[in-house]
Amino acid sequence: MTSATLELAKDLISRPSVTPEDAGCQEMMIERLTAMGFTIERLPFEEVTNFWARRGTEGPLFCFAGHTDVVPTGPVERWSHPPFEPVIQDGYLCGRGAADMKGSIAAFMTALERFIDHHPDHNGSIALLITSDEEGPFINGTTRVIDHLEARNEKIDWCIVGEPSSTAKVGDIIKNGRRGSLSGKLHVNGIQGHVAYPHLVRNPIHEAAPALAELAAKEWDKGNDFFPPTSFQISNIHAGTGATNVVPGQIEVDFNFRFSTESTAEGLKAQVQTILEQHNLDWSIEWTLSGNPFLTAEGELVNAAQQAIKAITGYDTELSTSGGTSDGRFIAPTGAQVVELGPVNATIHKVDERVSVKDLDTLSDMYENIMARLLTE
Amino acid sequence: MTSATLELAKDLISRPSVTPEDAGCQEMMIERLTAMGFTIERLPFEEVTNFWARRGTEGPLFCFAGHTDVVPTGPVERWSHPPFEPVIQDGYLCGRGAADMKGSIAAFMTALERFIDHHPDHNGSIALLITSDEEGPFINGTTRVIDHLEARNEKIDWCIVGEPSSTAKVGDIIKNGRRGSLSGKLHVNGIQGHVAYPHLVRNPIHEAAPALAELAAKEWDKGNDFFPPTSFQISNIHAGTGATNVVPGQIEVDFNFRFSTESTAEGLKAQVQTILEQHNLDWSIEWTLSGNPFLTAEGELVNAAQQAIKAITGYDTELSTSGGTSDGRFIAPTGAQVVELGPVNATIHKVDERVSVKDLDTLSDMYENIMARLLTE
Ligand SMILES: [Zn+2]
Ligand SMILES: [Zn+2]
Repeated sequence: MTSATLELAKDLISRPSVTPEDAGCQEMMIERLTAMGFTIERLPFEEVTNFWARRGTEGPLFCFAGHTDVVPTGPVERWSHPPFEPVIQDGYLCGRGAADMKGSIAAFMTALERFIDHHPDHNGSIALLITSDEEGPFINGTTRVIDHLEARNEKIDWCIVGEPSSTAKVGDIIKNGRRGSLSGKLHVNGIQGHVAYPHLVRNPIHEAAPALAELAAKEWDKGNDFFPPTSFQISNIHAGTGATNVVPGQIEVDFNFRFSTESTAEGLKAQVQTILEQHNLDWSIEWTLSGNPFLTAEGELVNAAQQAIKAITGYDTELSTSGGTSDGRFIAPTGAQVVELGPVNATIHKVDERVSVKDLDTLSDMYENIMARLLTE
Repeated sequence: MTSATLELAKDLISRPSVTPEDAGCQEMMIERLTAMGFTIERLPFEEVTNFWARRGTEGPLFCFAGHTDVVPTGPVERWSHPPFEPVIQDGYLCGRGAADMKGSIAAFMTALERFIDHHPDHNGSIALLITSDEEGPFINGTTRVIDHLEARNEKIDWCIVGEPSSTAKVGDIIKNGRRGSLSGKLHVNGIQGHVAYPHLVRNPIHEAAPALAELAAKEWDKGNDFFPPTSFQISNIHAGTGATNVVPGQIEVDFNFRFSTESTAEGLKAQVQTILEQHNLDWSIEWTLSGNPFLTAEGELVNAAQQAIKAITGYDTELSTSGGTSDGRFIAPTGAQVVELGPVNATIHKVDERVSVKDLDTLSDMYENIMARLLTE
């Protein structure tokens, strides 16, 4: 058994495009998109390869957003097969990127080919926003392309991001938003000295501990229909000179909020600062806001995705906003409706990453069905 | 102005005896002690140089304990003078070891020379226990020599340790004991995972924080007439993979108790374990007991030292048990009365370590006076 989607996914996997490498994936896509009547705009920034492709000039604009880069393989000897040599085993296509997200790209390309074949004069426009920097520092990828589009006021109305959203079976979950991510690097200062002279030291570990306990125990919000409660996690904590008889002068703590639309970055910052002040700490924080929360609560795109999945699989899909960040956070602020729909994510970023061959065809059918609902009468 | 004590201290400082080196200090001492009628027992263990010298066979046995090794110089360019080239400036003898404790050794040697000259037939016996491993791992120094003496049941009755006990003026403080030192390396285990999936992780930093806050705030005892309250200090705390989006699986915490005779190592361990259990932590601790507290509350030695200092300086000395550990912890458990008396400790272990030249002679007079009180009618 073979399919156009499978063949294309294998071709993509065989190109070792570890971030920020693209390894020729995009030029191969561009060739096929050009044949389908797309206008191509190559948008390389620094070491990152990106392109914007559009078919049609009218609105509304439907876009597929994705990335050709993959995360590193990890120890190759732990893989059952070489990670960049796609093989099929027990109905699964195995290789780095199979699920995140070369399978989705292949499914979208074949969906497009069928859709345009059937509807050469579809309503509105179709676009692809493809980057090789989704798994990396996301500085020169989607965000730069969006800046470029915004500068000329080119607006996406509906965007499907091909991230692997599914958990048990393809399409069981779509992500209609993501939590915000706010990080802080906290320094608490004390006074260094010898453990034998406790009256001369001010131990920053001792002073920080009750404040950290309070931060760890605090309820920041209760979440809402679309978001779980905001969570706070300390990821790194370091203090000490290495010597066991010296009280250090400073402690450094990295923490991260994943926050719902019930909280704001400014509100969280203010609450953290209040707690630190209440504990009389000598503190400073460097804040990094990786993304505000975004939500596509309802609308044509969510409806079309839900109905397409139901029509093809017979089951109801679930809306979710859980998990890590995605490039959707750069697209949603422009006013676009954004939904993430992709294959089962059980093996992403792991050794022996794989995707069900059957799911690839199902996913291609879903993408095609969504376009039909949005871009034809 | 010059004195025999100053000349000897300069000779000792000019020998760069960074732990465990002795750099010939002990052989030079041995030559002078042999001339005074001491019987010498060289007791090298591994890379450490030690000797035991005794004059007389009867009891009681008065001993001077000290070390010829010094701590490293640190950045030599920050010293006003080369650290192993003793110079006199503004009435101070400068050089590494001047105060800790080559000055004390020189003072004791000249005190001995005068005392034996005046009292060649003194009561009891006089001994020296000298090591080159006091500032180091103290495995092959005083503790090994004491084991050697214990094995043949040779008991010290009174021991002066030459550690720099004074703060403002020589003899203002003598140490008649030291706190115990108990260290622990605590591991608290959690479950590692991504910050975006807080329900799948068990954050060991979050779990440990309230327990650490409780340990830091706890009163372990109130101390007593001779000891300040037991103190608990965390010296090092480390957790984290380095990645800011990963909750680590473990936290490691180094802590240390300096404890009074109101607490015991076993009691402190039990209380720490109870607190960790109450917080439902998955924990383990490696304990290291560096020394139990010791105390020479009263007796002939403390009296002789107090009276000698009063006679020579006119002021009252203060008894103290504060500060770090000393080799007294190995000597006191044999049943000896132990007192530390040495020069002002303001510059020890620092750059430009120095000792007042005048204090060296005063200290030598104090040592001689103490011997006269204990070993003559
Ligand atoms: Zn991805
Ligand atoms: Zn010392």
